[in-house]
Amino acid sequence: MYLPEHFAETDTARIAEVIATAPLACIVAQTDSGLLANHIPLLTKPDGSLIGHIAKANDMHQTIADGQDVLAIFTSMEAYVSPNFYPSKQEHHRHVPTWNYITVHVHGTIRFQHDRQAKHAAVGLLTRVHERRVNGDSGWKMGDAPADYMAEMLENIVAFRITPTRIEAKSKLSQNREARDYDGAIKGLHASGAHRMADEMTQRVASSAPRE
Amino acid sequence: MYLPEHFAETDTARIAEVIATAPLACIVAQTDSGLLANHIPLLTKPDGSLIGHIAKANDMHQTIADGQDVLAIFTSMEAYVSPNFYPSKQEHHRHVPTWNYITVHVHGTIRFQHDRQAKHAAVGLLTRVHERRVNGDSGWKMGDAPADYMAEMLENIVAFRITPTRIEAKSKLSQNREARDYDGAIKGLHASGAHRMADEMTQRVASSAPRE
Repeated sequence: MYLPEHFAETDTARIAEVIATAPLACIVAQTDSGLLANHIPLLTKPDGSLIGHIAKANDMHQTIADGQDVLAIFTSMEAYVSPNFYPSKQEHHRHVPTWNYITVHVHGTIRFQHDRQAKHAAVGLLTRVHERRVNGDSGWKMGDAPADYMAEMLENIVAFRITPTRIEAKSKLSQNREARDYDGAIKGLHASGAHRMADEMTQRVASSAPRE
Repeated sequence: MYLPEHFAETDTARIAEVIATAPLACIVAQTDSGLLANHIPLLTKPDGSLIGHIAKANDMHQTIADGQDVLAIFTSMEAYVSPNFYPSKQEHHRHVPTWNYITVHVHGTIRFQHDRQAKHAAVGLLTRVHERRVNGDSGWKMGDAPADYMAEMLENIVAFRITPTRIEAKSKLSQNREARDYDGAIKGLHASGAHRMADEMTQRVASSAPRE
């Protein structure tokens, strides 16, 4: 992606956090019938690979070849930034509208897995992580469902693993603005309802070196 | 994309609304150096084409050929749906976790525009629409900026137009659930903070035929 130096995200913890908190990736691949994209929740394994599963009826496990390059796009937040948010605009009017966003692009090779063990592991891991987040200790577990139902569900899915070859990440968060305009953007974002983006920008300043 | 009939979005007004309210598209293309993706705000023209602009420093206007197929992906909302949200889960436990989301995929051919008139029109139109939404009548206008600054800005961008060849849209909103589980999902989504998704699902039921 287009990645000016001041927007490049190189903090691996932050990159991992985007994938963990915005796991619904858009997986893109080139196929014989053109570009193909599907939204699929992914999870990072300790070895860095991404795992997920799809319905067997989703023919991407046939139209995408084993070992083919795919791109998994994660986007954790985005918001419009008006020039009116910047106090300095009143002085020189040298601003144009823009968009802030955080995205991680994982390029890698995909391999589909049809064996029961891989499918069971993918469903189990994804379930555990997401259920804990939403429901804590009372989260749904695979064991809650009848065995015949889970066997049927696993029969109807295909698991896959993406082995990353290149990761690009962008945190486009007004870092190229002077302090008063950065603060103005936070205020304007709150006023326009983009609280998550505003909070993220506030947190980044708080965790960085003191400003002039 | 994988598009089961019950999730296919065929309402053109709803498709247009996704593009209008979630305009930051992820534009994907196959290039000589692999898959390329960039987040760029787009706008629909009355003739159905999508327009936008990029920094001249963004080399996608060189790595993507004029007339090449691209895919513009719009995603207006997404949220995790836990099996615990469904009242019927208590009876038969035949549920697994899933994700709800609304996405529009516009496949089309792209053409880059380097003439000042096209660039001015693209910036003017995008600005007008987004500023009106955020700032109403006090929105920023191109005329607010000094002429030399705007000339410099326009010099540093490239405009483009995507002519759609195929549009696919998916509203994955628990339509395949029985009424009590659909209502339970809305309640659960509110409880987990996914208010926009819950409100969208509430609104869809309200605007559809009475339920049994």
